[in-house]
Amino acid sequence: MLSLKAQYGLRAIISLAAHHGKGPLQAREIASSQGVPVRYLELLLSQLRRARLVEATRGKNGGYILSRKPNEITVWDIVTAFEGKAILFQPKEAVDAPPQTRVLSFIWRDAEKKVIDYLSSLKISHVLETLKSDKEMYFI
Amino acid sequence: MLSLKAQYGLRAIISLAAHHGKGPLQAREIASSQGVPVRYLELLLSQLRRARLVEATRGKNGGYILSRKPNEITVWDIVTAFEGKAILFQPKEAVDAPPQTRVLSFIWRDAEKKVIDYLSSLKISHVLETLKSDKEMYFI
Repeated sequence: MLSLKAQYGLRAIISLAAHHGKGPLQAREIASSQGVPVRYLELLLSQLRRARLVEATRGKNGGYILSRKPNEITVWDIVTAFEGKAILFQPKEAVDAPPQTRVLSFIWRDAEKKVIDYLSSLKISHVLETLKSDKEMYFI
Repeated sequence: MLSLKAQYGLRAIISLAAHHGKGPLQAREIASSQGVPVRYLELLLSQLRRARLVEATRGKNGGYILSRKPNEITVWDIVTAFEGKAILFQPKEAVDAPPQTRVLSFIWRDAEKKVIDYLSSLKISHVLETLKSDKEMYFI
């Protein structure tokens, strides 16, 4: 399962995507819409910066923007920014697994590949459209 | 990630599948080939019995057999016997997730569905063939 950090990170990216082309968004604006402390959100944003998914802009109206278009960022980009490349099945379990079960690791590897393929195909622009069509959704 | 129990359970099913049509296999035979204590294996087998994947036969040559053909059992059948229906993404995380991230749960649900579809399509007979073609594989 994905960490809460990755989930909030994805949510932050979506807020930025919803605001794309309208100038930078401040950390506190995103934080308040998500109901999380600003410091926590800044932590997520710095992780997203290191992964080159967001950029910080300085000045009076400074804040954060996406460094690519929403249709050029996938959910998998965000997941890997927080969890690394092998999140679902391989972590240390595959290494720790006894040799008798290790021969079956191709199954978990293939299953993981299905997830990665799906998350890599899922663009942020598409997620945004899906959420917009959901009446219960609220936006920043 | 799957529990070690599910991994050993799958391995036990594969041993039984490799022996399918040649009479019952005893718990200690499977246990020794897997290098696990007999009691542990019996625990797994009783769980597999409850899931109606294996049957116990009594008598001098009593032991365990698959209750269906290897091509009528999928990896998903075994996974659910040990983990229930929602193992990979939904467990309690989806329920515990804050409302701000819960709107994104369709992503994890869809990703889980990819895994379930794959594991449901993977027949034990096919896994057995794959393992047989692997030179490093050893069998009971």
